[in-house]
Amino acid sequence: MIKIALDCFGGDNSPGANVKAALAALEKNSELYIILTGDEANLRAELENKSFDADRLEIIHAPEVITGDDKPTEAIRQKKNSSMMAAIDLLRTDETVTGMVSVGATGALIAAATLRLGRLEGVIRPAFCPVLPTMNGGVVGICDSGATVDCTSLMMSQFAVMGSVYLQSAFGVETPRVALLNVGSEEEKGDKLRKETFPLLKQEKSINFVGNMESRDLLTGKYDLVVCDAFAGNVLVKSTEGACLEMLKMLKKNIYSNWKYKLGAALQKKMFDHIKEFMNYQNYGGSVMLGTRKTVVKGHGSSNARAIEVCIEQVCRAETSNMNEKITRLLCEKQNMTGAF
Amino acid sequence: MIKIALDCFGGDNSPGANVKAALAALEKNSELYIILTGDEANLRAELENKSFDADRLEIIHAPEVITGDDKPTEAIRQKKNSSMMAAIDLLRTDETVTGMVSVGATGALIAAATLRLGRLEGVIRPAFCPVLPTMNGGVVGICDSGATVDCTSLMMSQFAVMGSVYLQSAFGVETPRVALLNVGSEEEKGDKLRKETFPLLKQEKSINFVGNMESRDLLTGKYDLVVCDAFAGNVLVKSTEGACLEMLKMLKKNIYSNWKYKLGAALQKKMFDHIKEFMNYQNYGGSVMLGTRKTVVKGHGSSNARAIEVCIEQVCRAETSNMNEKITRLLCEKQNMTGAF
Repeated sequence: MIKIALDCFGGDNSPGANVKAALAALEKNSELYIILTGDEANLRAELENKSFDADRLEIIHAPEVITGDDKPTEAIRQKKNSSMMAAIDLLRTDETVTGMVSVGATGALIAAATLRLGRLEGVIRPAFCPVLPTMNGGVVGICDSGATVDCTSLMMSQFAVMGSVYLQSAFGVETPRVALLNVGSEEEKGDKLRKETFPLLKQEKSINFVGNMESRDLLTGKYDLVVCDAFAGNVLVKSTEGACLEMLKMLKKNIYSNWKYKLGAALQKKMFDHIKEFMNYQNYGGSVMLGTRKTVVKGHGSSNARAIEVCIEQVCRAETSNMNEKITRLLCEKQNMTGAF
Repeated sequence: MIKIALDCFGGDNSPGANVKAALAALEKNSELYIILTGDEANLRAELENKSFDADRLEIIHAPEVITGDDKPTEAIRQKKNSSMMAAIDLLRTDETVTGMVSVGATGALIAAATLRLGRLEGVIRPAFCPVLPTMNGGVVGICDSGATVDCTSLMMSQFAVMGSVYLQSAFGVETPRVALLNVGSEEEKGDKLRKETFPLLKQEKSINFVGNMESRDLLTGKYDLVVCDAFAGNVLVKSTEGACLEMLKMLKKNIYSNWKYKLGAALQKKMFDHIKEFMNYQNYGGSVMLGTRKTVVKGHGSSNARAIEVCIEQVCRAETSNMNEKITRLLCEKQNMTGAF
């Protein structure tokens, strides 16, 4: 039995989409047990007239909601009775619960997971690892992209190991090509942190390090995992998303400016649907916290039921593939060998 | 008279486009004097049968060429007789030469300008400032985006002042909206460097600081200048360019997959021409080195003659608007007030 918590509030389509996702996941996986957190009356109303295995579904009443407007560190202290903190507390106190999914405020979730869950043995700092689709139909993970802005090279080398294990576990990439985000491809490039990190990655036997990567190559499909500090990772992910979005907006604006362009676009409708589907983050699952004692998956705030279900599947896959055990084993082995930190 | 050096080699269309640009600029501006650097026989061949004012054009013979494959610091030491280093040397030794343009290797040019030209009085470190077009038809400068990867907050506050003066001088933006690149919009966000820089920018009276900017907003037109260290700046610029490029490639690939899409695209031909023109860096001029004793403008490697001419105009505008004097005055005033460094 895999027991997970599902934060049912904080998303654009919450709690309806969250509850729908839970029921769909339970239906598909008879080994799954889900604990919904959030306002009980609200959740019961969503469950009404739905058929599900009541022995594998539970509700924990937590009426508060953490929003994007809340300051993360204040929210996790003050909104103790929120759906998000109820799920985090469950992970913290109940050893049988292996992970959680949330589509709520990212900052608060990262802070709560980092400060409340504790780290896996051997892990110096946790990392937040989103994935983006690449042009050749694969995905690329960006690790760290949210948890640790001030990094050391040792932390960076751990991000490489954790991210690599994650891509194997969650996406079945056998030998992930790991790259260091840098300002040029040559070995000696970069700032102090990159210059210190490069040799550590080069000598790290448990990963397939392929060298430096320039940010312009993120979506090309040449790499499976990009290693960076959370500051650079945030810049990388958000500028890529921002540029794609602005390009689409510009196209749309131009198309609507003229009947001929509109007619052209009508002929291309299927193509644009295909491109939209390709760029739809909902197909690729959520971002995962790596290095925390339990698996936390963060889905996009505007996730629909299907996207949340993909996130639930991600938590299950992390569990069945023993992702966290593997991370701990690799990092502890290394420390035993080197006597590091 | 404005006297400038033009490195005539190292670009995809060199030396033909460079020489053509020089002649066009001389034709338009009777106050301009240009010194071409590069292989003399080659340059003379390009000038043959062209009409120009020979009193305002000069050639310095420098047969070597620095390429993108050369390591920057080695190249500037070993290729002393290159077109790029000849131009740099001219700036260094001839006080009457006010600036230069190059479309050669970026890394070598930044290194040469930084190491050989010396800094303006008051400047701790020079910065490299490219501009990108924004969706509302303006431009946004990114400062620093190439010169100084390991920064202090004091350097960052100088980048803000220099970039702001540059946008006023070169683009006529009266009160540039200056933002700090960060992982969120709230004041307390970011790593150590950002947390130290924010209050400095807030109290800097010579700029219009509008707060933190997330990288996804780069192209929206909400900001005129983004302040960052060169590592983050490089990630920002290259991931934005990379994402736009990959999007266009994907569109193209999809369009060619089906006759209906191709027909649609035929109807939209003018629209795509318009978008391409909008995204054409050649229309926006080159990237400028700020804080060096002379103005160095770097055009794109694939610049045509018109793009190089725009770069020449940029150097002239920096001179006529007294950009460097203004930078020195602002930075020295500040140091006299605060007694900083």
